[in-house]
Amino acid sequence: MTTTNIPPAYDRMVELLREKAVLNSCGSLLGWDEQTYMPPAGGEHRANQLALLAGLTHERATTPELGGLLGELKEFEESAGSESVLAVNIRAARRDYDRATQLPRKLVEEMTREISLAQQKWVAARKQADFSIFQKSLESIIRLKREEASILKKEGETLYDALLDEYEPGMRAEQVQALFDPLREGVIKLLQQIKDSSVEPKTEILKRSYPTDRQHELGQAAAAQIGFDFERGRLDTTAHPFCSEIGPGDCRLTTRYFENFFNSGFFGILHEAGHGMYEQGLNVEQYGLAMGLSVSLGIHESQSLLWENFVGRSRPFWNHFYPKVQGMYPESLNGVSLDEFYTAINDVRPSYIRVEADELTYNLHIMLRFELEQKLLAGELEAADVPEVWNSRFTEYLGVTPENDAQGCLQDIHWSAGLMGYFPTYALGKMYSAQFFKAAQNEIPDLSDLIANGEFGELKSWLNKNIHDRGQQYQARDLVKVVTGNELSEKPLLEALGTKYGEIYGF
Amino acid sequence: MTTTNIPPAYDRMVELLREKAVLNSCGSLLGWDEQTYMPPAGGEHRANQLALLAGLTHERATTPELGGLLGELKEFEESAGSESVLAVNIRAARRDYDRATQLPRKLVEEMTREISLAQQKWVAARKQADFSIFQKSLESIIRLKREEASILKKEGETLYDALLDEYEPGMRAEQVQALFDPLREGVIKLLQQIKDSSVEPKTEILKRSYPTDRQHELGQAAAAQIGFDFERGRLDTTAHPFCSEIGPGDCRLTTRYFENFFNSGFFGILHEAGHGMYEQGLNVEQYGLAMGLSVSLGIHESQSLLWENFVGRSRPFWNHFYPKVQGMYPESLNGVSLDEFYTAINDVRPSYIRVEADELTYNLHIMLRFELEQKLLAGELEAADVPEVWNSRFTEYLGVTPENDAQGCLQDIHWSAGLMGYFPTYALGKMYSAQFFKAAQNEIPDLSDLIANGEFGELKSWLNKNIHDRGQQYQARDLVKVVTGNELSEKPLLEALGTKYGEIYGF
Repeated sequence: MTTTNIPPAYDRMVELLREKAVLNSCGSLLGWDEQTYMPPAGGEHRANQLALLAGLTHERATTPELGGLLGELKEFEESAGSESVLAVNIRAARRDYDRATQLPRKLVEEMTREISLAQQKWVAARKQADFSIFQKSLESIIRLKREEASILKKEGETLYDALLDEYEPGMRAEQVQALFDPLREGVIKLLQQIKDSSVEPKTEILKRSYPTDRQHELGQAAAAQIGFDFERGRLDTTAHPFCSEIGPGDCRLTTRYFENFFNSGFFGILHEAGHGMYEQGLNVEQYGLAMGLSVSLGIHESQSLLWENFVGRSRPFWNHFYPKVQGMYPESLNGVSLDEFYTAINDVRPSYIRVEADELTYNLHIMLRFELEQKLLAGELEAADVPEVWNSRFTEYLGVTPENDAQGCLQDIHWSAGLMGYFPTYALGKMYSAQFFKAAQNEIPDLSDLIANGEFGELKSWLNKNIHDRGQQYQARDLVKVVTGNELSEKPLLEALGTKYGEIYGF
Repeated sequence: MTTTNIPPAYDRMVELLREKAVLNSCGSLLGWDEQTYMPPAGGEHRANQLALLAGLTHERATTPELGGLLGELKEFEESAGSESVLAVNIRAARRDYDRATQLPRKLVEEMTREISLAQQKWVAARKQADFSIFQKSLESIIRLKREEASILKKEGETLYDALLDEYEPGMRAEQVQALFDPLREGVIKLLQQIKDSSVEPKTEILKRSYPTDRQHELGQAAAAQIGFDFERGRLDTTAHPFCSEIGPGDCRLTTRYFENFFNSGFFGILHEAGHGMYEQGLNVEQYGLAMGLSVSLGIHESQSLLWENFVGRSRPFWNHFYPKVQGMYPESLNGVSLDEFYTAINDVRPSYIRVEADELTYNLHIMLRFELEQKLLAGELEAADVPEVWNSRFTEYLGVTPENDAQGCLQDIHWSAGLMGYFPTYALGKMYSAQFFKAAQNEIPDLSDLIANGEFGELKSWLNKNIHDRGQQYQARDLVKVVTGNELSEKPLLEALGTKYGEIYGF
């Protein structure tokens, strides 16, 4: 198709969508600043700013002009071929437009304001390990999310499906459940084998002194080496790490450092850099359009997890990096062998905090949250009962009981940010990442050697070509099939974990 | 007046103005970020974001609904009493609305385009110290500013008056001239006395090693001690220091540090903290309205200069702070007496660069620029002749001749940014600050002792009450009279400088 065939309605649609994206990106910067540099008393005004921008963005997302253009483009879309750039962009624009026009502006603004306040409540509640400070905010958010879901849900969908669809388009809760069931079984089996093993990783190694300025230096260098471009991005510290794309040429990573724990900072940075490299790998020409956007949260998470775990916690990676890290922290790592270090960073041990959980038990954290969220949405669980249910379920799955709410149901920012239906994408991301990495290994036979040499360019190019460049050409499940040749499955993940832990724990 | 008397049109006006202010404040954060943390490749997208927000803000500033409300409120305004909160807010809203709607869109767009080009030309010209690169741009800017001024100017005003009015509402060029003439005479006389003095400040002291991390620590502590509230603000580094109010509860100071020059960082922070304390002292209830806004650029500058110079370069201040600074930099300041240090930071010496000039000669830089601007606007001076006239006038006033255009007429960004009529506010700020400080000394008899004890709360409260709380209730000259009981005059400034330098230089 030549450009002369493109109808004027398409060009105008692009103009409108770009403007919406630019406006939305102003909110991204305000949000980033809120989590990094905003002074304590700036919260109320920030809430007003974000509410106004959200309202203006919503106005643009629902302008009748866009609806008219999408109507005009219907025929053209059908003739263009469903995987063509133009059809993908129009289809996604229609999906977004339908979704946005369904939600009343009043609801959107109320949600934005509630979220900004809820986040501050959540920070206070977590600080004091007191769920009651946050309870009322959570109730409001659940009420608003139920209202949102009941408007959005399509024939045959549950309230939960309607929310999940926003983060993982095309995925249903029951499909997730069908993957989670065998995954849980496999994870619990591996966990038992590890518990039965006599191998005891020396995790104390990682809790020695790791001055944070050097952690920052190391993490920044590692992120640059695996391929994150600091001309087009930066790295800052925050309470709850995230990656935020501000716009083409501007992607912000955040992390947090603990002087007496190596993993948080280092693997957190690899994780966020994986997200950032996805954003930096998107097609700038398609900015603001589906073909220039990431597929889903699960696919996004697959990129962060692939770099954090399949690369960053692999033996070849540490063949290359360990001497460097040891040189930076001689007082803590002299006399510690590569093998001891590698075993320690892959320690499996039930623990309270999701973001600090090992690769294996992490999945159980997600499944717990997935079950609770579904019950909250379905009205089968009250906000007030969350701490109790959390703790008992947690004990059942992981065999340990959180000592307080900060270690339990208050640990994550998501609910306070109005993100429900979001958690399962983390475990979906685990499965996607395993399946993608397996495919990359098949297509780049010397991948382990490259990684052991500190060369990451080929893997990055492979991800650019197979995933990033494609934008939203395929929905997540279809993308997995196109890239790997197989349907999404929990098996590659369980296989990879089994092989790795079998080697480490000797089973 | 009770609130029940307030017409609905007023409430709606407030709503519209608040929304405009909030929208504008999003641009403030984006602008702050651009100067502090934005990655190098983020510039293009940032320009798109700012252009979009500027367009949306302009839309709100010129919406016919606002014009209609202001028409409706005319009678009410007249009955409310000209110094009443409501009348002040309506009058200022009308002034802004008229200004925004008077300028044809074509002129605004041409100006925007010309400024964007002119800034690039200016950067190149300054880099190569060659005015001819910038000349054509300056000609265009003058032409457009003349056009703008001829639209805006009111009966009996000169073109220059119309531009000055944007920065210093109500002030006329001839009033400024009437103050500048005796000020120049006094400054030149003092400068001669200083040149004739045998005292030679040991400025080398200030060029020793001052590690920047400790400068930051010291500056932050000093800003907090004089009264800048870090719960409602922060301090970062940038290339060209500024203070930016993001909104109630959020005010950002910036500075820059030089390892081998103490003054830039420390006095720069006091200066910006003075601006910041003005913003933090404004009435939050009146956010977005004239009663919650600063009076003028000159009054703003008076607040920064009062803290930087009248407090920060005073002997009592250093009685308190010097032991602390000496303790932080023993390797540079051991053996340096308080007297030597105090004399060094008050060194007077003609120099080329305005922003690096001392308190005394600074005024001459401003007067020179003021004279040139007036002639350019009046068509009595051609852009092409600026370098020659600059250099000869500079030599006449300061006794030294710039070696090139970068040290001369190209040093400041203002003209390339379309800012004409702005410079005099810097010297007005000097006079305001002297007159305000004198009044504060009269009303707080032990002010020197308080400062020498590191106690700044009373002075801050005095400024809050007399200046900040009042918003735009009075125009600058009237405010001076209300606060000090006297008409604005150059005398308090000349007296203060004469006393200080007489003591230091022994005349």
